[in-house]
Amino acid sequence: MAKVTRDMLGRQSLLRVDDALKILLEHLALVRLQTETVPLATALDRITAKPIISPETLPAHARSTMDGFAVQAADTFGASESMPAYLRICGEVLMGQQPTFTVERGCCARIPTGGLLPSGTDAVVMLEQTVPIDESMVEIVKAVGVGTSLIAPGEDIGKGDPALPAGHRLRPQDLGLLAGLGVDQIEVYGRIRVGVLSTGDEIVPYTEVPPPGKIRDINGVTLAGLVLRAGGEVTSYGIVSDLKESFTAAVVQAVKENHIVLFSGGSSVGVADLGERTIAALGNPGVLVHGVALKPGKPIIIGLCGSTPIFGLPGHPVSAMVCFELFVEPTIRHLSGLSSQEDLPQPFVFARLARNINSAPGRRDLIRVRLAKGDGVWTADPVLGKSGAITTISHAHGYFFIDEESQGLTKDTEVKIILYL
Amino acid sequence: MAKVTRDMLGRQSLLRVDDALKILLEHLALVRLQTETVPLATALDRITAKPIISPETLPAHARSTMDGFAVQAADTFGASESMPAYLRICGEVLMGQQPTFTVERGCCARIPTGGLLPSGTDAVVMLEQTVPIDESMVEIVKAVGVGTSLIAPGEDIGKGDPALPAGHRLRPQDLGLLAGLGVDQIEVYGRIRVGVLSTGDEIVPYTEVPPPGKIRDINGVTLAGLVLRAGGEVTSYGIVSDLKESFTAAVVQAVKENHIVLFSGGSSVGVADLGERTIAALGNPGVLVHGVALKPGKPIIIGLCGSTPIFGLPGHPVSAMVCFELFVEPTIRHLSGLSSQEDLPQPFVFARLARNINSAPGRRDLIRVRLAKGDGVWTADPVLGKSGAITTISHAHGYFFIDEESQGLTKDTEVKIILYL
Repeated sequence: MAKVTRDMLGRQSLLRVDDALKILLEHLALVRLQTETVPLATALDRITAKPIISPETLPAHARSTMDGFAVQAADTFGASESMPAYLRICGEVLMGQQPTFTVERGCCARIPTGGLLPSGTDAVVMLEQTVPIDESMVEIVKAVGVGTSLIAPGEDIGKGDPALPAGHRLRPQDLGLLAGLGVDQIEVYGRIRVGVLSTGDEIVPYTEVPPPGKIRDINGVTLAGLVLRAGGEVTSYGIVSDLKESFTAAVVQAVKENHIVLFSGGSSVGVADLGERTIAALGNPGVLVHGVALKPGKPIIIGLCGSTPIFGLPGHPVSAMVCFELFVEPTIRHLSGLSSQEDLPQPFVFARLARNINSAPGRRDLIRVRLAKGDGVWTADPVLGKSGAITTISHAHGYFFIDEESQGLTKDTEVKIILYL
Repeated sequence: MAKVTRDMLGRQSLLRVDDALKILLEHLALVRLQTETVPLATALDRITAKPIISPETLPAHARSTMDGFAVQAADTFGASESMPAYLRICGEVLMGQQPTFTVERGCCARIPTGGLLPSGTDAVVMLEQTVPIDESMVEIVKAVGVGTSLIAPGEDIGKGDPALPAGHRLRPQDLGLLAGLGVDQIEVYGRIRVGVLSTGDEIVPYTEVPPPGKIRDINGVTLAGLVLRAGGEVTSYGIVSDLKESFTAAVVQAVKENHIVLFSGGSSVGVADLGERTIAALGNPGVLVHGVALKPGKPIIIGLCGSTPIFGLPGHPVSAMVCFELFVEPTIRHLSGLSSQEDLPQPFVFARLARNINSAPGRRDLIRVRLAKGDGVWTADPVLGKSGAITTISHAHGYFFIDEESQGLTKDTEVKIILYL
């Protein structure tokens, strides 16, 4: 029917997922969270607001990477097991101390891993390539070149070199690099605050026993978990009545107090209309998207109040979660300033499809699957069921997409599964 | 030389990575963290200690999945656009309320998405397949079968059915399922506490300017980040002197206060010996592993004091991180009780190797890479450099392994990259 190929804003056909997201992100092109400065110890997973330039040279001095003897490489040239070089031990480098002596030609100094090379030396012979003679003399049984078994000044990073780019999520090893450079205060983007409302007359808190006709709020806790995992903070507004005044008042408050607002529960036409009218009434730009060519998740509403995105998510828990991952999460990443790791490909696992799956052309389908291994091959068995059934996503290990161009996939097709970790 | 094929415990050849981990986990086969009961709202990413059985049937009653009309399917048989069925509208189901009327043959009731099916009905005709006549009569233009556009009682989950297995990390959708079932108190394994010490005379806190010969503590902050990401809590003991008494006292205290103890800094033979002697002195089983066929990461020490694993990680930051991921993280997962998602394959991305890489047979090499896209193909460029250089891991996007059986890989080989997310 004509109705099916027209979206809720009267467009001739439903928007594609990518186009719907693009419309929103284009409006937010210049919008980012405010920045703040945090100490290194609390900076894990925060996103850098500026490139970090190395304030120091690392290492500052040449250091040994082996236990052994610091030498002048030239003194070892030609040395072998059958024709060792004999060097006089003129000193010992102590860990954590700057050697005060100089090593002359024909001499060497004991050195531990990490020890500073004494003046006059340019290489280290590892202990295993030496034979002790006595306290003052050692046999070198292998020739080494200049720079062997040491890390040279600036070999890790030089002063003024780029240490980390802007828009970079700080991983444990990035904190390590900053610690090594003594960078203890880091300018990062603020944490995103996401307001979460559930609405609908049939919804009761999950801590209550629902009377007949009512059901417990599933989306509140699921969406909160998704926000936390995306690095955000949740402001929960609980269950809001779908009476116009109560609902509008709650959304207005949530917009005031958050960077993003999510409401869910609007699967029925009445609540969807209310959601759309409420967003429109909040002012420009208003409703950007209502309905996308996606299953599950078709009835999503995306609006913008000033620079605050408002998402009207479907009431069905599976649809709400799918819409979160396809629309809300990329919006969180954008506003949070993440850019440096954004272009990396998405990790997946391969599996063979356990049955035929049909899909309507022009629509993106997200198929939840359980994985099982047999004969050394992973198979992906679609978890069928209605999007109102939360078990279809809780019992899933991951999912794959059937793209807009495809009408389905046949059994045994190799598909790329994205895991629900 | 003979020395190279003998590990620090005198074994003829170095242990393989898998064997080293197996030795530890076999000792810990029956060891798990204590369990505790937490409310649903704080249970994200916690691990279930017991299978959770559904205490309810979900949904409890048949509910509509569409806006439309609740009907007796038999009344629609044969209906089409050219030959519609005419049904009398005998009532309206209100959202969140139990309908009190019964729908007779030849009748129907308005119903919203999520509405409870009134008695006498067994299917829903979606609004788009109806044509209104007046307030009391509607045309049905499509036949529906019993069960169409509704979710039947127990179709999501039945009372007594398994909801979630034991050893399952609670994802957002799992919290959603538990909310739907009204399960607000969940028995989970406790959080793992990991004590982290850095040692070595050359190490100063990263907040200080190191005098010549000393370097800032990189491992403390990197290991803390890794522990947090693995779901654990960190007890930091800062920098501990490598004088025997101080070091032993700190390790004894850390063993008392934590489930796992990590010390790092022992790259030099002296500190490694101290670490080994300290673990041995703490009693049985003592040192299990000293040295594995791994690059970087060869000098790792794995010991056990009672049921508390103690890891002596190499001092080089890259080696320490690699050892964490290969040995400490699986140990955390084991002690934390994680089992249900453990067997899933590890997600990866494909890339073509940008250059030849050599590896010694019998050893596992972990090669850090940067990814770049050209001509639609991802290439993986190994980040070369010494394991003392933290930039080689901070500038990496991910890594791949060269297994014990391989002597290296040639340029353009397709490799599976695990991303550092």
